[in-house]
Amino acid sequence: MGKHEKTAITPTRAENYPEWYQQVVKASDMAEKSPVRGCMVIKPWGYALWENITDVLDDMFKTTGIKNAYFPLFIPLSFLEKEAEHVEGFAKECAVVTHHKLEKDNNGSLVPAGELQEPLIVRPTSETIIGDSFSKWVDSYRDLPLLINQWANVVRWEMRTRIFLRTSEFLWQEGHTAHATKEEAVKRSQMMLDIYAELVEKYLAIPVIRGSKTEAERFPGAVETLCIEALMQDRKSLQAGTSHFLGQNFARASEIKFQSDKEAEEYDWTSSWGVSTRLIGGLIMTHGDDDGIILPPRIASSHVVLIPIYRTPDEKLKVMEFVENLANELKNIFYHHKRIGVEIDAREIGGARGWDWIKKGIPVRVEIGPRDIAKDSVYVGRRDKKHKDKESMTRDVFVGKITNVLDNIQETLFKRAFLFLKEHTVIIDENKEFYDFFTPASIEKPEIHGGFALSHWCGSNECESKIKDDLKVTIRCIPFDGEAERGACVCCSKPSDKRVVFAKAY
Amino acid sequence: MGKHEKTAITPTRAENYPEWYQQVVKASDMAEKSPVRGCMVIKPWGYALWENITDVLDDMFKTTGIKNAYFPLFIPLSFLEKEAEHVEGFAKECAVVTHHKLEKDNNGSLVPAGELQEPLIVRPTSETIIGDSFSKWVDSYRDLPLLINQWANVVRWEMRTRIFLRTSEFLWQEGHTAHATKEEAVKRSQMMLDIYAELVEKYLAIPVIRGSKTEAERFPGAVETLCIEALMQDRKSLQAGTSHFLGQNFARASEIKFQSDKEAEEYDWTSSWGVSTRLIGGLIMTHGDDDGIILPPRIASSHVVLIPIYRTPDEKLKVMEFVENLANELKNIFYHHKRIGVEIDAREIGGARGWDWIKKGIPVRVEIGPRDIAKDSVYVGRRDKKHKDKESMTRDVFVGKITNVLDNIQETLFKRAFLFLKEHTVIIDENKEFYDFFTPASIEKPEIHGGFALSHWCGSNECESKIKDDLKVTIRCIPFDGEAERGACVCCSKPSDKRVVFAKAY
Repeated sequence: MGKHEKTAITPTRAENYPEWYQQVVKASDMAEKSPVRGCMVIKPWGYALWENITDVLDDMFKTTGIKNAYFPLFIPLSFLEKEAEHVEGFAKECAVVTHHKLEKDNNGSLVPAGELQEPLIVRPTSETIIGDSFSKWVDSYRDLPLLINQWANVVRWEMRTRIFLRTSEFLWQEGHTAHATKEEAVKRSQMMLDIYAELVEKYLAIPVIRGSKTEAERFPGAVETLCIEALMQDRKSLQAGTSHFLGQNFARASEIKFQSDKEAEEYDWTSSWGVSTRLIGGLIMTHGDDDGIILPPRIASSHVVLIPIYRTPDEKLKVMEFVENLANELKNIFYHHKRIGVEIDAREIGGARGWDWIKKGIPVRVEIGPRDIAKDSVYVGRRDKKHKDKESMTRDVFVGKITNVLDNIQETLFKRAFLFLKEHTVIIDENKEFYDFFTPASIEKPEIHGGFALSHWCGSNECESKIKDDLKVTIRCIPFDGEAERGACVCCSKPSDKRVVFAKAY
Repeated sequence: MGKHEKTAITPTRAENYPEWYQQVVKASDMAEKSPVRGCMVIKPWGYALWENITDVLDDMFKTTGIKNAYFPLFIPLSFLEKEAEHVEGFAKECAVVTHHKLEKDNNGSLVPAGELQEPLIVRPTSETIIGDSFSKWVDSYRDLPLLINQWANVVRWEMRTRIFLRTSEFLWQEGHTAHATKEEAVKRSQMMLDIYAELVEKYLAIPVIRGSKTEAERFPGAVETLCIEALMQDRKSLQAGTSHFLGQNFARASEIKFQSDKEAEEYDWTSSWGVSTRLIGGLIMTHGDDDGIILPPRIASSHVVLIPIYRTPDEKLKVMEFVENLANELKNIFYHHKRIGVEIDAREIGGARGWDWIKKGIPVRVEIGPRDIAKDSVYVGRRDKKHKDKESMTRDVFVGKITNVLDNIQETLFKRAFLFLKEHTVIIDENKEFYDFFTPASIEKPEIHGGFALSHWCGSNECESKIKDDLKVTIRCIPFDGEAERGACVCCSKPSDKRVVFAKAY
């Protein structure tokens, strides 16, 4: 147990951030690598987070009139080719189905058979296949707007993968809407970005910067890509959600037309938007500490673990009765419209139990032994505080204030992350300062990066590319809340009228 | 509108049942064929049914301790081959991924590139890939039972498809459990069948027969397959859910072992079980009539449609105000723990609205015009009654009894289906009678079949095969509630001690 007196995770964030991430995921029991290249297995503790994310988002979507539907997993190659930039953007990472059965060859080995006339692509995203349906569903302006969402798995073949952050298969939702006017489609893409920001800030407790992408960073085929960007603890940016205004590009590609109220035939204006299981990676990298992850209560897989402590069968009987009563009482308390999630950990492995739950990031740990029961009290640890800062309180006080405690943890996590974001968002005007900011300070910590640099950019692809080539730094977004301000491009010194957000990114 | 005075769906069930089914699906706006061979698009009205089914099941699962997780879409060919019967059973219907990108060939056409070292199979079911995880998750008897469920899409390549009933891709849940003892695994497989029966009977209002499959009809690799079978209106059987006791077959294949409390290393005993979007096909074929589908209220996509009727802008204002107030009041009423679903159909297409909702199967239609408002009343039609049997009642009476009306519709649908099942479940002892029962009575109705025949079977593969070859009739199940009874096999006359259920099947 000596190790635990230092940190539960080795290495620490400062020692080796990427390796810390892998170890945190492992220690939290949220997910693991699968034998299928680049695909992950999401274990129950991690999947529960995704279930909570889907519940929250699904409600928010439906409140704005969106309905769920389901479209095929496979996209004919010819469909993907309908939009030139789109297929270009995804061609290098497509899982391709070429056969529809297995047969024994001459050696008795099973091999692919029944070659398809046209290869099918496992959807990397569904604009083209959903566009085909939309072209049938929309006849008149009366059919608009069409507001559809799909919860699904998608595949983008990746050569270098990292659990939750970059996997060949991931889970997501993709929304697709069609509108009679440009204005309406733009407004919808903005509305969905706001919904994502609300999910990420209010539930995942991750502060974000909202903005639009540069042409080079846009979704392939989009006219405009809006995004929310979050800053991880290694000071790299994570794109946490995107919403695309597609103009009439995909409507032309899929022939989505409508009869306007003036009886003219027009192309629809469409939008699409999505968030994925990647958010869970962002959650880990925002709130995790050197003891493991910390789950924000409003999205946590579960809220409270009760750890019974006893030595004799007699004590066990008494303690378990107390624990089960408490569990039942807690489960009947509502925390933001859902019942409090309660775990009982009665495994016979002593002190390791507490550390397991710290590593799993459960917001509140409660130890209960015979002496606590004698005082009608419980011994409470909060995951946002040091693990030794445990507090004894009477059972009733604990029950009475549990929802406040959870809200307080939620608030603390957001504030911490917000301060971190502010601290590492820096206004930079000089080229040398910019290059220094993004160059790791010491070779011992090559994995801690600069942060968000608010710098001027002339708007040219050349400067954007040069910075990317030199530093692997990209323009994360042109922020919505940046003010017009005259300045000089941090790369070429030509005039610029607004700062953009530069960072290294996942 | 002349057609509507007869039936809303052409042809009728009696005229051409398979074609009736296709037309009902189309008219209900629940789903449509996709441009991808054998795959369907599930539209919002159909997908809402699936959402309700998943909500109900997910709750029931979790109550028994099951947790959700997610496993890769792709299964390496070598994994599928680990269980010999299993791969044999699925080899003919596998979508095979062989490449991971697209590249331009010499003609500039995009073609598959980046050939994989080992082909990947798009999961037709996940015993082998989940087994691999289980082998890592289970060390000791303390880790058992392991109770996992996955909500996912699966692909089984089909040459002849029918929406919801048989599609190359479908949505389902697959549960997988591992246990320390045979007894426990068997018990779990039975428990899950009971849960399926409860879902199907209590929510979908479809009566079922529970039983076990013969060896020939078992899941490939299972020791025992339990099933629920329902009788469609064309008197063919639909397998509505299956639960498999897998013995130690898959544990051996995937090396799922545990240290017992006696410190011996043993193979686990596993079970798996699933239901799919096929249930929606069963719902349509059980409750649909010649005007379209009828949705059982407890699973319905929505419950009540309000149809405002007006001629002048002035009337519109008044009627819409009344309608919106009523909608808000209804939405605040809970029907079995969920809010009542309310639609307002204000489209300017006159009487066609009512028929649209009849075809969509919404349980209750309410017409509201100026004259109704003058009397503070509404004009109510129930989907389980004739479309002309509408009733005027005061607004308050309607609101006061809406949940009772919904319960009453639910009950009526189940009773109707139950009577149909009883009527077409026939005890047959004579071989000739058996053959007559399953031979369509007239060539004009080749698509109405016999029903369930309760007949004796000697237990031999030969008799089972002969009947299948002669009549396309299979043993749907060996029913749980059949009593021991001496008799003679309906095929070979050898002794038998129990009746089994024969039928044609989807």
